[in-house]
Amino acid sequence: MKAEIIAVGDEVVLGHVVNTNASFLAEALRQVGVIPQYHTAVCDEEKMIKEVVHIALKRAELIILTGGLGPTEDDMTKEAVCQVLHQKLQIIPEEVDHIKKYFEEMKLSMPGNNVKQAMFPEKAKILPNYRGTAPGCILEEEGNTIILLPGPPQEMKHMFLNSVLPYLKEKNHFYTEHIDIRTFGMGESALALKLKDLLGNYEWGSIATYIGNYEVIVRITVYGKEEARVKTQIQQAQKRVERCLEAYIIGYNDEKLEQKIVTLLKERHLHVATIESCTGGLLSAALTHCEGASTVFNEGIIAYSNDAKLKYVGVKEETIKSFGAVSEQTVREMAEGIRLVSGVEIGIAATGIAGPGGGTSEKPVGLVYIGIATKEMTYTHCLHLTGTRTEIREKTVKHILFRLYQKLCEK
Amino acid sequence: MKAEIIAVGDEVVLGHVVNTNASFLAEALRQVGVIPQYHTAVCDEEKMIKEVVHIALKRAELIILTGGLGPTEDDMTKEAVCQVLHQKLQIIPEEVDHIKKYFEEMKLSMPGNNVKQAMFPEKAKILPNYRGTAPGCILEEEGNTIILLPGPPQEMKHMFLNSVLPYLKEKNHFYTEHIDIRTFGMGESALALKLKDLLGNYEWGSIATYIGNYEVIVRITVYGKEEARVKTQIQQAQKRVERCLEAYIIGYNDEKLEQKIVTLLKERHLHVATIESCTGGLLSAALTHCEGASTVFNEGIIAYSNDAKLKYVGVKEETIKSFGAVSEQTVREMAEGIRLVSGVEIGIAATGIAGPGGGTSEKPVGLVYIGIATKEMTYTHCLHLTGTRTEIREKTVKHILFRLYQKLCEK
Repeated sequence: MKAEIIAVGDEVVLGHVVNTNASFLAEALRQVGVIPQYHTAVCDEEKMIKEVVHIALKRAELIILTGGLGPTEDDMTKEAVCQVLHQKLQIIPEEVDHIKKYFEEMKLSMPGNNVKQAMFPEKAKILPNYRGTAPGCILEEEGNTIILLPGPPQEMKHMFLNSVLPYLKEKNHFYTEHIDIRTFGMGESALALKLKDLLGNYEWGSIATYIGNYEVIVRITVYGKEEARVKTQIQQAQKRVERCLEAYIIGYNDEKLEQKIVTLLKERHLHVATIESCTGGLLSAALTHCEGASTVFNEGIIAYSNDAKLKYVGVKEETIKSFGAVSEQTVREMAEGIRLVSGVEIGIAATGIAGPGGGTSEKPVGLVYIGIATKEMTYTHCLHLTGTRTEIREKTVKHILFRLYQKLCEK
Repeated sequence: MKAEIIAVGDEVVLGHVVNTNASFLAEALRQVGVIPQYHTAVCDEEKMIKEVVHIALKRAELIILTGGLGPTEDDMTKEAVCQVLHQKLQIIPEEVDHIKKYFEEMKLSMPGNNVKQAMFPEKAKILPNYRGTAPGCILEEEGNTIILLPGPPQEMKHMFLNSVLPYLKEKNHFYTEHIDIRTFGMGESALALKLKDLLGNYEWGSIATYIGNYEVIVRITVYGKEEARVKTQIQQAQKRVERCLEAYIIGYNDEKLEQKIVTLLKERHLHVATIESCTGGLLSAALTHCEGASTVFNEGIIAYSNDAKLKYVGVKEETIKSFGAVSEQTVREMAEGIRLVSGVEIGIAATGIAGPGGGTSEKPVGLVYIGIATKEMTYTHCLHLTGTRTEIREKTVKHILFRLYQKLCEK
């Protein structure tokens, strides 16, 4: 089944908003075996809307329109589409009741022009809107299916996922599953090499890599007409990918590394304290963002100056003099120092040159040392990072969290 | 002049990427008096590209296509457009040299298929690509102007701003200027009320508000055919807006509040130290992100637990017992304590309940106290914030920075 996605609205065409509805729908349609072939965006002009619908009817079996279902005179998607299809709009009393109820729940009375939103052709399948007042609808006409959805993304998505997707699944008998396997510590090309026998497009789906937030993500997609087979196949593919990547895997789908760490620490009754130089608070901010942070994290130090490193955790003046503030020796004393001062099981530290200034030929921008101290041992690691100041700081945090996660998984 | 913007590429149509090129171009075209009326996206299929160009030629004077200028067989925008216009492609030797040079600079030799990117119709105005290998071009044909740009956003934007915009300015004699006035501390509707005699669309441009990163931004746009008049008019409009908003203004265009603070502190040889509870490092991360941070910021404490508040800056146990960790009294002792401990002129502190758990009827989620201590006095403020944990933390940082900026401006 081939589709065209049409956005109606001046705000899209004039560039006030980015048309994220189109990419969302395109991605979602493919999950049920529909192939999007065209996107169109058109102004709030009845004549122009009619023209683009005419063109779409010739080249697509499924047409999805977003926007222009509101109560004002500018909103005329329904009117334009019904004219093209020679279908008449009439007031549907149940829909008037729904809209009235929506306003009542917000302690408001329904403005008169909202009645327009309760008008549909007799044969329309009406799609309820649980996020706003404008219902959508599905119209069928001589082999074409035309679906009208509201423009605001959260209303559109909710209606699509809850009403349109089940309708298309039933119509097409098509199932899709996917899983994202998040990895860190290996570049995209090295990872692609490890997965060279698995990556690709198959008749049953695809295995692909993409980049997200300094991670490389392996996305497995499986589709087909038998739900049970799809579920089995995605599990098999996942196992094969996992076998190749092992220690580089940091989570699945929307899991966050820092949350996994906080959860692991909490389970084991461990506590962590931080001392940061170049990251300036980003590391502690990441940890304290998590649910349950207060049970595993009590305190941290931002030791931006050398004096602060000495004063709070007892880094030796001598160490900084001999090796510099950005050195393996200093990060070791920082990590061990914060562990003792705060009386926790794990001390973590970062010191480095985030740039843009401050680099030398010996210690260039991007040189960062990270340290993790426990009672038994202190682990340090030297990083050579690239990018802007923001990127170097954020990558440093990701590296520390990754190493800490690996250490926790080892135990 | 009316325009259609066409994106060529499976990655757009299938929803792998969001078509941000279209909104960028629509916004930018309006700056030179061009009105976008349609956006289209089409797959990498020659026949389909030709059809959409045919349709566009009937309804738009200016057509901008993005994507499909690469060296592979999939890339056929130029071929399709030239067929529609009955223009022939030929190798332009200078363009071959440019592309060769691009590869040489990257210490690579040019693959054979890149010659395709140096092929243009004889009459084309070729647009250099300083960010990649695919040059763009401008074609003119019987009253229509067709502009071909590369698909990767950074290549496209650079080429558009440097080559296409000047071309359209000259063609249309149209000038646009705009300025964003960033404000904080007043909601959008309160601000709209203050500006009620100014906000609106005029024949010379517009004054509008929009929301960005917890700020309300007032955007003034002025356009017209006389450059000098446009420049004068935007200055006048700016002065009128400024007179209404005064102390709420925190910057212009891309200025960042934290950078303005660091610059002000540096100019006055002042230093700041932080102690954070609910923000967990976000405040120090914001300050240390700025250029020049190391001259004004030496150290900060993340005092997430009550013990840490006592241990590092001497908050009294009694104070926390009597008033709680989230109280005016505690934040005052935190701010004053960090100022003394770190020996700086300004100590700043935050303590609050960021949620989602931890709230009570007396001290609900969103209750936050902030403090700023100097030698002369300590200022505290109670905030009642709404939103997610992330939003409450980020809003807290913004509020502290705003109050600190106001204090610095007072002096």
